[in-house]
Amino acid sequence: MPIDKKNAFYAQSGGVTSVINATACGVIEACRKNKKYINKVYAGRNGILGALRQELIDTSLELTKDIENLKNTPGGAFGSCRYKLKDYREDDSDYIKLLKVFKAYNIGYFFYNGGGDSQDTTNKIAEYCNSKKYNIKCIGIPKTVDNDLPYTDCSPGYGSVAKYVAISTLEAGLDVASMSESSTKVFILEVMGRHTGWIAAASAMASNTRTQPPHIILFPEIAFNEEKFLKEVKKQISASSYCVIVASEGIRDRRDNFLSQMGTSDAFGHTQLGGVAPRLAELITNRLNLKCHWAVADYLQRSARHISSKVDVEQAYKVGYEAVNLAIKGKNAVMTSISRVSNKPYRWKIKDVPLKNVANIEKELPKNYISKDGFHITKKCRDYIAPLINNELYPKYSKGIPQYSKLKNKLVKKILK
Amino acid sequence: MPIDKKNAFYAQSGGVTSVINATACGVIEACRKNKKYINKVYAGRNGILGALRQELIDTSLELTKDIENLKNTPGGAFGSCRYKLKDYREDDSDYIKLLKVFKAYNIGYFFYNGGGDSQDTTNKIAEYCNSKKYNIKCIGIPKTVDNDLPYTDCSPGYGSVAKYVAISTLEAGLDVASMSESSTKVFILEVMGRHTGWIAAASAMASNTRTQPPHIILFPEIAFNEEKFLKEVKKQISASSYCVIVASEGIRDRRDNFLSQMGTSDAFGHTQLGGVAPRLAELITNRLNLKCHWAVADYLQRSARHISSKVDVEQAYKVGYEAVNLAIKGKNAVMTSISRVSNKPYRWKIKDVPLKNVANIEKELPKNYISKDGFHITKKCRDYIAPLINNELYPKYSKGIPQYSKLKNKLVKKILK
Repeated sequence: MPIDKKNAFYAQSGGVTSVINATACGVIEACRKNKKYINKVYAGRNGILGALRQELIDTSLELTKDIENLKNTPGGAFGSCRYKLKDYREDDSDYIKLLKVFKAYNIGYFFYNGGGDSQDTTNKIAEYCNSKKYNIKCIGIPKTVDNDLPYTDCSPGYGSVAKYVAISTLEAGLDVASMSESSTKVFILEVMGRHTGWIAAASAMASNTRTQPPHIILFPEIAFNEEKFLKEVKKQISASSYCVIVASEGIRDRRDNFLSQMGTSDAFGHTQLGGVAPRLAELITNRLNLKCHWAVADYLQRSARHISSKVDVEQAYKVGYEAVNLAIKGKNAVMTSISRVSNKPYRWKIKDVPLKNVANIEKELPKNYISKDGFHITKKCRDYIAPLINNELYPKYSKGIPQYSKLKNKLVKKILK
Repeated sequence: MPIDKKNAFYAQSGGVTSVINATACGVIEACRKNKKYINKVYAGRNGILGALRQELIDTSLELTKDIENLKNTPGGAFGSCRYKLKDYREDDSDYIKLLKVFKAYNIGYFFYNGGGDSQDTTNKIAEYCNSKKYNIKCIGIPKTVDNDLPYTDCSPGYGSVAKYVAISTLEAGLDVASMSESSTKVFILEVMGRHTGWIAAASAMASNTRTQPPHIILFPEIAFNEEKFLKEVKKQISASSYCVIVASEGIRDRRDNFLSQMGTSDAFGHTQLGGVAPRLAELITNRLNLKCHWAVADYLQRSARHISSKVDVEQAYKVGYEAVNLAIKGKNAVMTSISRVSNKPYRWKIKDVPLKNVANIEKELPKNYISKDGFHITKKCRDYIAPLINNELYPKYSKGIPQYSKLKNKLVKKILK
């Protein structure tokens, strides 16, 4: 039992997803149920920047129904950020600020919701606070559409983007199939995935054979070979009279050059990508003289709450809810994780894993998830993805439009100068 | 009362939609209910090409439940085509072939489901058959996501793409809003619309004010002015801290040059477009130094049956169903059209219009539907679009994937050599 009642800090970090707010809902609802341990939940405005700038949102002012409806609302309700903390042993200026804020606002629980970089941030904060003997429980909460976090069976956000990509590929595939006789022969869908092909892999979940779309999947894990690719396009056109290609944004050639490089980079030094689809369309048009259409889903795929997977929403909620329970039990410097108990029927439970294990590791698509020719997925991969896209949980609609939560997001009055 | 029982020919033409199969369902179900007038429905494989090549699908072999589920299935179930018939007074070779096929297969009803070009095709066939004293009822059935057909309040296919674009803009808008403080400031969504801005206009249906996404809409009806546009982006960034732009693929400058031209063209001589979004992103990055993300929805928008408008599905079904009733009543060379009876509550009915009025006319967005500055829509436009995106009609799902109809599509044995 904690001696004094502390406040909690929760923030969202990195690229948002269609279910990250379901996690926020889980954290806030769990805190509200544990009033004897936790007083208020302050949400950081724009992630960790909210703590650094003393911009704390008082979530206690939000209505129960609005918090509940966060489960059905995409985007980051409190704002997110791309901000990387330096190693405190090299530059502790941010950490000094954070500790001041934690003390001033009586923060005893720190919940940080993000991908690999965010788990690293959480781990550093836990270490720093420990080194300064400040009593705080730091819990990382997984989130990434890329599904590349290690030590968790999957990451919340992935199941929904996987469902969106599977359905979009099915639907656009039916479209191009009907156009192919006298018009478009090739359709290319570019999906997210900077270093891993988890999202691209999901495009195959609506098909049973290689004659159904997608005919070709391009993974970042497999070096792009122009001649082999063009040969495969021709082969698929012969077999099916049309060809649907799903390409990860991050595909690279043998020399590790990204097929489409915009030359700019984000705060973490990642190259900002985009435009693989038009590059491939140009290649196919010029070399094979086939009419192409292409789409780039970009933010549409990761914000499409209207077609989220129910399993994903439930898991997103639970990793948030259980993070609070872990903190109350005294756990520190861990991340909540999802553990697959059984595949058929699909059962899962929440566990936890030390943050130091998780930080800065990217989980690639295993070799045995990719078909031998490198252009498709295996049954093992299908069995893995299948339960994650299962069932629907539609938002409520009014006049044809989903009714997403709009929070007040009222900032607490600043205590520190 | 017709003296002898004839067969019907039905075909799909031009770009398909998420609800064109609902129209097919309407036609086939109406014919099945009128057995005393109509024997079989032959569907053209790949549009009019199916008649020209004697590739006729016997729809009587399809199960009732599969025909019924066409209502929920995107793409063109029988295949579509981009094929323009010449004027028969200049070159009647195709018409001679068609007439032979009509006679051989005892076709007394011709239903052609498409946009402006297809209505023109239907009209020419009606005229030619009339000039040859061949007794056939030719009925055009409207379909186009572009919503540019005249003499109908709206076109089936539009309501669903409008709903998709409105929801996608809302969802991606929530995403970029949460990223904008330290990352992406501008998001650009490229939507269809070669000559008209109906689809782009629908992106505003989830917003109430200019401070909500989309902040800027670019219509083909308004000449693109680079300096004015960049000024508006800066203004919107100042007002909202981020900027969501929805651009029609067909935007042109003052000299009528398409912003993005791929240099290729389809069978009707239309230039194939694509790539406005990356062009705009480049412009904003270079001139304003703001981080951009962009998406190109392409076929995803017009095949997204998972989020179709219920009103649109119902109208698509009805324009097909009533086309059969008109033909039985002896009407010829007309197109079924949708007439808006009242706005609140929304009521509509099916009427018909002579094909010669419809053919080759494009209905642009009226001037009073576009705001004075040219970057947004007016209340009049909102009132027009609102009922068309209303209500949902979800397909059935199994294991997280919509269960779309797969027809046998068995071809009739060829009679002619």
